[in-house]
Amino acid sequence: MSEELDVVRQGIDEVDRELVTLLKRRLQLVSKVGEIKSRLGIPVYAPDRERDMLEKRRSEAEKHGISPQLIEDVLRRIMRESYCSEHDAGFKCVNPSARNIVIIGGNGQLGSIFVRMFRLSGYQVDVLSRRNWETDAQRMLANPGMVIVCVPIDVTGETIEKLGSLPEDCILTDFTSVKAVPLEKMLKIHRGPVMGLHPMFGPDIASMAKQVVVCCEGRYQDQCEWVLAQMKIWGTRIERVTADEHDRAMSFIQALRHFTTYAYGYYLQKYRVDLDRLVQLSSPIYRLELMLVGRLFAQDPSLYADIILSSERNVENIMAYRDCIDEQVKMVQSYSRESFIREFLNIRDYFGSYSEQFLKESKILLDQARDSMVHNTL
Amino acid sequence: MSEELDVVRQGIDEVDRELVTLLKRRLQLVSKVGEIKSRLGIPVYAPDRERDMLEKRRSEAEKHGISPQLIEDVLRRIMRESYCSEHDAGFKCVNPSARNIVIIGGNGQLGSIFVRMFRLSGYQVDVLSRRNWETDAQRMLANPGMVIVCVPIDVTGETIEKLGSLPEDCILTDFTSVKAVPLEKMLKIHRGPVMGLHPMFGPDIASMAKQVVVCCEGRYQDQCEWVLAQMKIWGTRIERVTADEHDRAMSFIQALRHFTTYAYGYYLQKYRVDLDRLVQLSSPIYRLELMLVGRLFAQDPSLYADIILSSERNVENIMAYRDCIDEQVKMVQSYSRESFIREFLNIRDYFGSYSEQFLKESKILLDQARDSMVHNTL
Repeated sequence: MSEELDVVRQGIDEVDRELVTLLKRRLQLVSKVGEIKSRLGIPVYAPDRERDMLEKRRSEAEKHGISPQLIEDVLRRIMRESYCSEHDAGFKCVNPSARNIVIIGGNGQLGSIFVRMFRLSGYQVDVLSRRNWETDAQRMLANPGMVIVCVPIDVTGETIEKLGSLPEDCILTDFTSVKAVPLEKMLKIHRGPVMGLHPMFGPDIASMAKQVVVCCEGRYQDQCEWVLAQMKIWGTRIERVTADEHDRAMSFIQALRHFTTYAYGYYLQKYRVDLDRLVQLSSPIYRLELMLVGRLFAQDPSLYADIILSSERNVENIMAYRDCIDEQVKMVQSYSRESFIREFLNIRDYFGSYSEQFLKESKILLDQARDSMVHNTL
Repeated sequence: MSEELDVVRQGIDEVDRELVTLLKRRLQLVSKVGEIKSRLGIPVYAPDRERDMLEKRRSEAEKHGISPQLIEDVLRRIMRESYCSEHDAGFKCVNPSARNIVIIGGNGQLGSIFVRMFRLSGYQVDVLSRRNWETDAQRMLANPGMVIVCVPIDVTGETIEKLGSLPEDCILTDFTSVKAVPLEKMLKIHRGPVMGLHPMFGPDIASMAKQVVVCCEGRYQDQCEWVLAQMKIWGTRIERVTADEHDRAMSFIQALRHFTTYAYGYYLQKYRVDLDRLVQLSSPIYRLELMLVGRLFAQDPSLYADIILSSERNVENIMAYRDCIDEQVKMVQSYSRESFIREFLNIRDYFGSYSEQFLKESKILLDQARDSMVHNTL
């Protein structure tokens, strides 16, 4: 095109190659940090250090006339990679005297992550499933330090009942996405320490850092604390609520939201809406919304059936949602601009400062989304 | 904490400072590219060069044992910044002999972006609004090369009618989010070249690069092409469809989707669901969905009222959506796991390869989302 342009572009390529080298050096240093942290038992995720470091880099960038948001975004992306490399060194074991950990369902997608993490932290982990129950259950469950039930929601109850009598100091816990019913069942069959956990992430995470695990206390929580301390070393954030608070919130966070996503997909399918056209003409935000709908259907239908149909509360919330849609469709049918604006402002009041915060956050995210999405539609 | 850790962290800080310097150098080179492109009239956005360059960096990264996705993500983020700096140099003017461009509503948020872009490209741009109509309209509209109607949807019709007679070679266009009705009106009042445009972005974009503008042809399209060529130089992607295809798609992309988002917000508000708790316990994906709902209510209610209530087709689509919800609520009420799974698989068929593609894209995006969101909930 132009020789002049070629020369400058060669300069850019040169800078980019230096960038690759620099990234390599950084990741090597970070893996050293991982080794040291692992040896000393310091949590992987250090929010204060992260915040300080980003603040310094932002002000340095500003001095150089570079956008602080640019350097923050780039560093956050590199740090995410860093959390993954920190894994390789293994993790400090907070309870070296713990007896074996039995993970029932440890062959599953979510279970196997925890098998790996506990092993990387120096615990003896035994994996039980339907396949090896007959042959191995008796031996593995003879004197375990902890039993984790990590099986699909529809067989959680019967799995807990199959456990029989565990040693009194054994911790019993489950990873089910509802908490009240399994917790009750665990408290009934076991007299020792009991705790319900809900890891709020799918099996496709690159690292445990910054992931949320919800904890609902059952009995003798002090004896369970080492498990949470171990997870914190992995970088996990622990959120403590009661089982009832958990289930109430999940009915909105999981059941209702999955239902509305599912119903939107159903609608598009029923009317055979031209998806290619929608993708072609999408603004970034609609493309993002379409993505969040479409991705559901690449996943396991029974998982979603089980979550949505797991409680009467869910079905009640979904019915209440239907009534809201009814009300609002009537408003739209009357073409009443004033009613719409009035309701809109009520909802804004309800969202309070969250709506502005979400708008700000979504701007950053939509820019990122466009960076990667446009590529795929060209 | 540990001297050893401090030493390694100092090394990381050193690398990060080098990173800031490197970014600065890259942005300077890119601004040179901008100057050259502007002089030669080469479009800002060069998809082939971008693809080649990323491919090279990915394979270099792999040779160094670094994740190719890491280098791609970092470079995409830097390139986004680069598109912004390329602005400063101005843009090549593809039609230097064009007479003045009148942007009606050029003081508005969207209009002012185009005022700036056309001016940066060397055109004489006149801004008309309600405020200066009396004093300036006659002079500005005496012999314009192009008139752009960029006013709220509910006054687009009357604004077009107010235009009176324009020179026969003047291009008349509008930026309204519906296309059939304004296009018809423009064809009626003007005998020269007419084209409907719909910029698919909000006023908060950092750069025009990679943004989509939908074009619906009206009359004498060949005489309008220079406008699209100019927008391509800004980096814009032009999508051509008929006004009817556009309106049909937008009824789903905008009206229906905004309605469902609004209705979900209405539901949360009606039942006073505890937002702090939802945010506390959110998985990244639910947090993202909540963000997309909440952000709506930080924006202008009349804008959304006008989009949703702009056509009978929208209201019909919304009613059809209500019927889908009804059907599916009945299915959920019967707790029929099998029906749910059967429907789910039908919808998967409908989404075809999009569901897997969306799942893959959303994984990348959700990782990015967690990077920035966790920070705000700590």
